[in-house]
Amino acid sequence: MVVDDIKTLDQNDPLTSYKAQFALPDEVIYLDGNSLGALPKRVSERMEETTRQQWGQDLISSWNKHQWVTLPQRVGAKIAPLIGANAEEVVCCDSISVNLFKLLAAAITFNGTHVRNRIVSSHDNFPTDLYIAQGLETLLGSERCQFVDVAEDELMHAIDDQTAVVMVTEVNFRSGKRLDIAALAQKAHQHGALILVDLAHSAGVMPIHLNQWRVDMAVGCTYKYLNGGPGAPAFLYVRSDLLGNLQQPVAGWFGHSNPFAFAADYTPDQGIKQFLAGTPSVISMAAVDASLELFSDLDMEQVRTKSMQLTQVFHELIEQTGLTKTLTLLSPLSANERGSQLSYAFDYAYELCQALIARGVVADFRAPNFIRFGFAPLYNSFDDVWKAVELVQQVIESKDYLQPRWAQRQTVT
Amino acid sequence: MVVDDIKTLDQNDPLTSYKAQFALPDEVIYLDGNSLGALPKRVSERMEETTRQQWGQDLISSWNKHQWVTLPQRVGAKIAPLIGANAEEVVCCDSISVNLFKLLAAAITFNGTHVRNRIVSSHDNFPTDLYIAQGLETLLGSERCQFVDVAEDELMHAIDDQTAVVMVTEVNFRSGKRLDIAALAQKAHQHGALILVDLAHSAGVMPIHLNQWRVDMAVGCTYKYLNGGPGAPAFLYVRSDLLGNLQQPVAGWFGHSNPFAFAADYTPDQGIKQFLAGTPSVISMAAVDASLELFSDLDMEQVRTKSMQLTQVFHELIEQTGLTKTLTLLSPLSANERGSQLSYAFDYAYELCQALIARGVVADFRAPNFIRFGFAPLYNSFDDVWKAVELVQQVIESKDYLQPRWAQRQTVT
Repeated sequence: MVVDDIKTLDQNDPLTSYKAQFALPDEVIYLDGNSLGALPKRVSERMEETTRQQWGQDLISSWNKHQWVTLPQRVGAKIAPLIGANAEEVVCCDSISVNLFKLLAAAITFNGTHVRNRIVSSHDNFPTDLYIAQGLETLLGSERCQFVDVAEDELMHAIDDQTAVVMVTEVNFRSGKRLDIAALAQKAHQHGALILVDLAHSAGVMPIHLNQWRVDMAVGCTYKYLNGGPGAPAFLYVRSDLLGNLQQPVAGWFGHSNPFAFAADYTPDQGIKQFLAGTPSVISMAAVDASLELFSDLDMEQVRTKSMQLTQVFHELIEQTGLTKTLTLLSPLSANERGSQLSYAFDYAYELCQALIARGVVADFRAPNFIRFGFAPLYNSFDDVWKAVELVQQVIESKDYLQPRWAQRQTVT
Repeated sequence: MVVDDIKTLDQNDPLTSYKAQFALPDEVIYLDGNSLGALPKRVSERMEETTRQQWGQDLISSWNKHQWVTLPQRVGAKIAPLIGANAEEVVCCDSISVNLFKLLAAAITFNGTHVRNRIVSSHDNFPTDLYIAQGLETLLGSERCQFVDVAEDELMHAIDDQTAVVMVTEVNFRSGKRLDIAALAQKAHQHGALILVDLAHSAGVMPIHLNQWRVDMAVGCTYKYLNGGPGAPAFLYVRSDLLGNLQQPVAGWFGHSNPFAFAADYTPDQGIKQFLAGTPSVISMAAVDASLELFSDLDMEQVRTKSMQLTQVFHELIEQTGLTKTLTLLSPLSANERGSQLSYAFDYAYELCQALIARGVVADFRAPNFIRFGFAPLYNSFDDVWKAVELVQQVIESKDYLQPRWAQRQTVT
């Protein structure tokens, strides 16, 4: 592969016009959109309008005038087509952690029966998913809730007739490996269990077909490939035919069927609104709403095609430059079997990451020893990939990563 | 009371300079800061800086560079002196509803014993407080968690040796009545129970002494008198000597002792950080952080004095103009016994509220039949009070509230 091949790929890229919609800094190759998506220009404009005009000038009247009160559902409806769901099956609210808690508890108490007590997940799921299940087990006691975590490739075997819910993340945050959600859903249903899918690393970067795959419940993140901003509210999906049978325990007033009646007794909304808890975080959610406009006329198959090409070209260049002698690919070799990231194990992964950041290539380190490169098809080009690999090569061949200055560990990377 | 008295009050107001710090619309008398506080000018500036520079330009590095990772604790530390707590006892996170769930569950499972099962509250507490307790009872079953709600004046008698936790709101959202928290805490402790206080309607508008009152746990709102913006993250307090003995169940990764080790097992942080769940909502929390700067050199006794004067003058003018024949005061008559609001029952409270809004006086309606006037000492003047009462008088004496156009009910008011 030579630089002309890269030029051709960029010239033929149907998504090339999207980059101008983002406020990326010059001279930075940002390969960390899988951790924090870049800022869409329209988002800063919307936040200013929401703050200065809606909050500042229209004040309390904005709950009606600007429909703040229905923001969770309106934003949910915009996310729905990106995940293969109906508009009335998705809301935007809280964090993934809180939403997992609501859904796991609802699954454990499904139909009011407590016969099934197991939450089955994989040991290398994202930690917060594991922790939330552990927290629920501690609260309910192991007779009512038992958390079972197995190796990722043991998942199918671990699902049995005691399983209340299978909790999986579609794309693994470490390896980038993509699970076959439809197969897991089928297996769960064969055993009368529910399936709950975390879409943190897939929403906005690949087609997702929750209804078609018969997924029961899902959560996802808006601050990665959906570019909603740091710590932006998460989303939550429940398949419509289950809505009447599930009750979530964080029974805040926004989940009430008629919150503004201020009744003393909780009557859950019969729809997806039941899964809301407190007052929505308006300005953050308006940011997500604005960001989602970018996706309204986007073909997710096109996004996926480019995403696969980006990871493929990156790894081909890593191989071509002989860097696979130093960096061990943790991700599946086939682009089809992974999400939009590549992870490499390396004893000096932290230092390599810091040395790359200093050269304008932003990737991230994850303990204990790997570096992740994330590819955002809306703003990453093939030229970014070419230049990034050149700089990786430069740092590794010069052994610059051995310089003590890169080893100053910080809290987060 | 004549207009000259009003002028004198404004001239002697030590807080008069604060109004210029807010971006209030001209021609509006905003008496709804108890529902949504006004926009401090520094907040819109901070949000733009956080969005455009920190997120847009510094991207993922901001978690370290701008210390996003410690925002919940840093904002908590700024709230602490306003509520009589130590810096390490408060965090900013999630919504009041979610925080109540965490704390009620922690209280019910206090020290791992499940001997005490009762949550005692008052029937007219804010609905979300009641709903969250009901949700927890439904999840845990009434053997482990029984929610008992009594009339507000029966609270002291309802606390007994089966009480795990007493849950009260310092200032009632309907009547504005202020409870004697120190007395309730003492009673709770006599019976070996914990006390959890909701400060939604008191934080930022009156001195609060959680440590001195021996309050065990508290939650509060930042979007009312703390002016953090619509749906801004709430706060949560736990007295330091209890931190080691409480475990909250929404065990998200930000509550882990070392989240960035990405370990598979949850090890709760030993401090207040345990009460965090998911990734913090950075931009919303930065807004709260900026708003709190206004409070850094504020004497809360002065704020309380002005707040009491504002409610007192308003009601005196209502009496003086003979409006008490029409409007029935729901709030305690003595300013000392109420928060910073006045509520009046009136069959046409909704229509009165709408007619006032059309004249630039913003108050709010609460079902079934009362109007609330909230007073924010940082931006409300005595002249606001004078003019507002004049307009109330105008609407009532002209019977303008009977016009059909005011009766178009909207979702929220």
